[in-house]
Amino acid sequence: MPKVAIFMGSKSDLEKVKPCAQILEMLEIDYKMTITSAHRTPERTYNLIKEMEEKGCQVFICAAGMAAHLAGVVASKTVKPVIGIPISASSLGGMDALLSTVQMPPGFPVGTVALDKAGAKNAAWFAAQILALTDASLAQKIANFREEMKKEVEKAANEL
Amino acid sequence: MPKVAIFMGSKSDLEKVKPCAQILEMLEIDYKMTITSAHRTPERTYNLIKEMEEKGCQVFICAAGMAAHLAGVVASKTVKPVIGIPISASSLGGMDALLSTVQMPPGFPVGTVALDKAGAKNAAWFAAQILALTDASLAQKIANFREEMKKEVEKAANEL
Amino acid sequence: MPKVAIFMGSKSDLEKVKPCAQILEMLEIDYKMTITSAHRTPERTYNLIKEMEEKGCQVFICAAGMAAHLAGVVASKTVKPVIGIPISASSLGGMDALLSTVQMPPGFPVGTVALDKAGAKNAAWFAAQILALTDASLAQKIANFREEMKKEVEKAANEL
Amino acid sequence: MPKVAIFMGSKSDLEKVKPCAQILEMLEIDYKMTITSAHRTPERTYNLIKEMEEKGCQVFICAAGMAAHLAGVVASKTVKPVIGIPISASSLGGMDALLSTVQMPPGFPVGTVALDKAGAKNAAWFAAQILALTDASLAQKIANFREEMKKEVEKAANEL
Amino acid sequence: MPKVAIFMGSKSDLEKVKPCAQILEMLEIDYKMTITSAHRTPERTYNLIKEMEEKGCQVFICAAGMAAHLAGVVASKTVKPVIGIPISASSLGGMDALLSTVQMPPGFPVGTVALDKAGAKNAAWFAAQILALTDASLAQKIANFREEMKKEVEKAANEL
Amino acid sequence: MPKVAIFMGSKSDLEKVKPCAQILEMLEIDYKMTITSAHRTPERTYNLIKEMEEKGCQVFICAAGMAAHLAGVVASKTVKPVIGIPISASSLGGMDALLSTVQMPPGFPVGTVALDKAGAKNAAWFAAQILALTDASLAQKIANFREEMKKEVEKAANEL
Amino acid sequence: MPKVAIFMGSKSDLEKVKPCAQILEMLEIDYKMTITSAHRTPERTYNLIKEMEEKGCQVFICAAGMAAHLAGVVASKTVKPVIGIPISASSLGGMDALLSTVQMPPGFPVGTVALDKAGAKNAAWFAAQILALTDASLAQKIANFREEMKKEVEKAANEL
Amino acid sequence: MPKVAIFMGSKSDLEKVKPCAQILEMLEIDYKMTITSAHRTPERTYNLIKEMEEKGCQVFICAAGMAAHLAGVVASKTVKPVIGIPISASSLGGMDALLSTVQMPPGFPVGTVALDKAGAKNAAWFAAQILALTDASLAQKIANFREEMKKEVEKAANEL
Repeated sequence: MPKVAIFMGSKSDLEKVKPCAQILEMLEIDYKMTITSAHRTPERTYNLIKEMEEKGCQVFICAAGMAAHLAGVVASKTVKPVIGIPISASSLGGMDALLSTVQMPPGFPVGTVALDKAGAKNAAWFAAQILALTDASLAQKIANFREEMKKEVEKAANEL
Repeated sequence: MPKVAIFMGSKSDLEKVKPCAQILEMLEIDYKMTITSAHRTPERTYNLIKEMEEKGCQVFICAAGMAAHLAGVVASKTVKPVIGIPISASSLGGMDALLSTVQMPPGFPVGTVALDKAGAKNAAWFAAQILALTDASLAQKIANFREEMKKEVEKAANEL
Repeated sequence: MPKVAIFMGSKSDLEKVKPCAQILEMLEIDYKMTITSAHRTPERTYNLIKEMEEKGCQVFICAAGMAAHLAGVVASKTVKPVIGIPISASSLGGMDALLSTVQMPPGFPVGTVALDKAGAKNAAWFAAQILALTDASLAQKIANFREEMKKEVEKAANEL
Repeated sequence: MPKVAIFMGSKSDLEKVKPCAQILEMLEIDYKMTITSAHRTPERTYNLIKEMEEKGCQVFICAAGMAAHLAGVVASKTVKPVIGIPISASSLGGMDALLSTVQMPPGFPVGTVALDKAGAKNAAWFAAQILALTDASLAQKIANFREEMKKEVEKAANEL
Repeated sequence: MPKVAIFMGSKSDLEKVKPCAQILEMLEIDYKMTITSAHRTPERTYNLIKEMEEKGCQVFICAAGMAAHLAGVVASKTVKPVIGIPISASSLGGMDALLSTVQMPPGFPVGTVALDKAGAKNAAWFAAQILALTDASLAQKIANFREEMKKEVEKAANEL
Repeated sequence: MPKVAIFMGSKSDLEKVKPCAQILEMLEIDYKMTITSAHRTPERTYNLIKEMEEKGCQVFICAAGMAAHLAGVVASKTVKPVIGIPISASSLGGMDALLSTVQMPPGFPVGTVALDKAGAKNAAWFAAQILALTDASLAQKIANFREEMKKEVEKAANEL
Repeated sequence: MPKVAIFMGSKSDLEKVKPCAQILEMLEIDYKMTITSAHRTPERTYNLIKEMEEKGCQVFICAAGMAAHLAGVVASKTVKPVIGIPISASSLGGMDALLSTVQMPPGFPVGTVALDKAGAKNAAWFAAQILALTDASLAQKIANFREEMKKEVEKAANEL
Repeated sequence: MPKVAIFMGSKSDLEKVKPCAQILEMLEIDYKMTITSAHRTPERTYNLIKEMEEKGCQVFICAAGMAAHLAGVVASKTVKPVIGIPISASSLGGMDALLSTVQMPPGFPVGTVALDKAGAKNAAWFAAQILALTDASLAQKIANFREEMKKEVEKAANEL
């Protein structure tokens, strides 16, 4: 019963997307991570959206590089919230993926997070924050992890 | 009982942010729209977050230009989802606000939408999609509006 | 029996796309120009592609702004050549549309031309050059128009 | 009897351009690949264009970096379709080559594809799609390869 | 007997290029200003270069917008110094013309000046500085005008 | 009794920020360097500001990458001068941090210096120049070091 | 006895720089505002620096557009703090002036503020904050104005 | 009796500037290459300009990174032609140095060439082209080297 779907456009994105899955695991949120392409496998993408929705998926996370259309394609086929992770996969430093992901036309938003690993982590946190709206214990977990992040900062400061 | 808070950093942002409010009204979602600044009124911002949360607010939408820190400040003080609308308010075409909004560090995501009016609309749609996860009639309304958007495209095509 | 399909993502693109149609008319190339959106009307887009292909359409021209996915969506559904016109439709000067159109992943090329009106004209010229590969009289027409462009330069130089 | 000419501006581009040739070979399309420079060898470039046209070449592919004028020079001398591959060859990440290739003035289009290797591949696919307009078996081959790309995505997804 | 040739790619550049001619006139330097295009009239461009060289032209100034190849084409056909004025003529603010003009490959330099009117003026000053290497009275004139510029600054400061 | 506070947003910034501390040491200016985050530890940041002010701190130096809000947060809580060092910490080459730091709204300036190590050094020099307004011997030290920098240039020139 | 010098590179910058003077007046800080150019009047610039220093000037504010060298030239000639206001004065949106101002080499910092009017205001605030280090009543004034800014936000929010 | 002066802002630029000297040597043009900084050694820079002019120097070549003011400073102190080589020396890929070099205000042109090594070579070629205006044998040498470049292209093409 995955609550979150993680789609990436290419297996070469995996290394950068992994931290997204790791945070969802840490938060004990069921997810399904797979590869599907806006252009190479549009039908697979549509079928996955439908299948995931039927299984109760609440949030879609899409990672893609270059002309990163994957999140937009998913956004056009579901009314569930879609989170986009732009991946830097060309010599343009990810500016291509960022603009292709964030500049969606009215009616089909993609909630875009930061580029690459930082964004992959934040996609997980953002999905968790959405799910936590109806899951007080998850909200508590997020708050607890924030406390830990605080302590890490303090620890790092002490070690300086 | 506002479900959505819309914060903007300056009253000069109002013209660009208005469409956000209009779509929430169209979808009959209660919202509170106000002005508060990350730098000029940090305490007001914190108090508003707390007050809104106590009133049951589920989603925060923040619009700001230039070094657009407002969404980030809100994200650091709530575990509710925060949506950021970058506003083009300098000669840099909004690239400053876009990067200041989207490139948040791990743990404190801001789901960033498009620049200016298109983004203001999409912030409303995105908030609605989040709320619709637990409100089937709202999900239906969004789906209905998408049908209307389709018809508008077809109508425009016929008029061509 | 349109040989060329011109799709634009929004009626607001019309003013910038018109010169494309005008050049095709000047070259006596049958075309169909319509509005269809990658995100608002994906099925309409697929149906149009199929319908156009069945009617003998050889080249697809797609104009879109912001996260301009339209050309990419068409490219994923046909093996006919797809030409993309990036439209500047946000405060970013069209850099968003340019990168979203040109940076397509391997296997699904979009032959991208210049931004806005210059690109609209060149999409027509490029489509004509493709069709001229099997139409010697069209090739001659293009060569003739190039001669006229030369004369226009000379005339402008003389008037200086 | 090469159907496609691949020109690159410098031998240092070879590594990035090779995938273009490999895909044409895979599709059994005759091509000629050579080095010629817009600025160092303009006459050689004009002669090559003429020679290739006489041999029946249908599509020109030009790869160049920095102020990438090669595709534009070729476009000014032929009415055959010209495809441009921008090469990142300076510290600017290829933005120089991209803009120099895509922003052609009306009448002399260069169908521009993605930067570097992804673009080299897509130049081959785009040339093939143009040739396939009058070669049903080639169209079928392209369709078949798209099926294989689909399967690769599915295989990669299964291996995840 | 023009010492300086001013070429512009399109008559639409005239307004921005005029200050170049005005400064040359002020300095009593003979010049010829005309329109010629790298792509529309390559032969005209080559002939003009040859004709100008035969008449004793020492410096070529080329102004062009978008994929501004004109200066590069001229540089490939003469060993006289070539000065490039990038013209902002698209929604990209002239970044396209700037990079297309300045990023020339080794052996074929274009001495690039600022965008638009400021650059048109500086192209004239730069040409004058080159010619002044063998014309002491011209060098003195330039020095005198610099004195006037100083006085203008002082006058403006006094008026403040 | 630290005169200068150096805050960095993450321990990963340390390598780039160190030269700031080294120059302050060289100038015998007391400083405190620590880690604190605008988003992870806002309270710690406020407390540090207050604590530092009470101890007599005159200048705050803040280094952060990505959506670099740290300097802005500090600027909103003190009327002491705040210097911002943008850190390149994503694939965007630090353009994100630069714009997030420098484009502050009226009333809350951050005196921004160059990216990374060059900026870290200049933050120290700038702080020293501020403190030197009321410390003639420090002003002399800065002048002396400038003399040494001159000699280093001359020495390097001689070694060429 | 001006405490602050405001230099601008051209009288065309005046409209954008004025708010800097207005804020200094509001804060009752003596200043001298004049025009001087890094390139047209270098000696005037050096003399002004010396003259201002002798009169007790503590902070230099420099505004310039395009290749904005003025702040850097001043920084190389004084050990007083120099604040740079980048002015957008070309088609590049001020990115030229911003990078020319902020990316100073080690040893010669320019504390750079935002582009144009927002930056002009912040240059004044930043100068005031520096002067307030030894002027408690000025520090109080700044704090008071911040209180007024707060109230303006609240007033604007109430009027919404 | 150096005809050309090569100034670089820092010894760290040497590796990128060397090809400039090598081409001048190849063309048997006397040159002097040294290190001098716009900000660290302004007097040294002025003295060098004067000294070089007195020795008969005709062309100044200046290489600098970041806020690359060196060429501008030299341009403000001589009416000899000044050529600027922007050096990529920060995380911004040299865009900082390019804009700081090329966007000079009217009256003080810097003929800017490409970034880094390609620009260093072209600065030498451009200086040679200027000197060749009064040195027919140098003009012939340049023409001969262009012939060699042609042959290199042909040789590389044959080896392909």
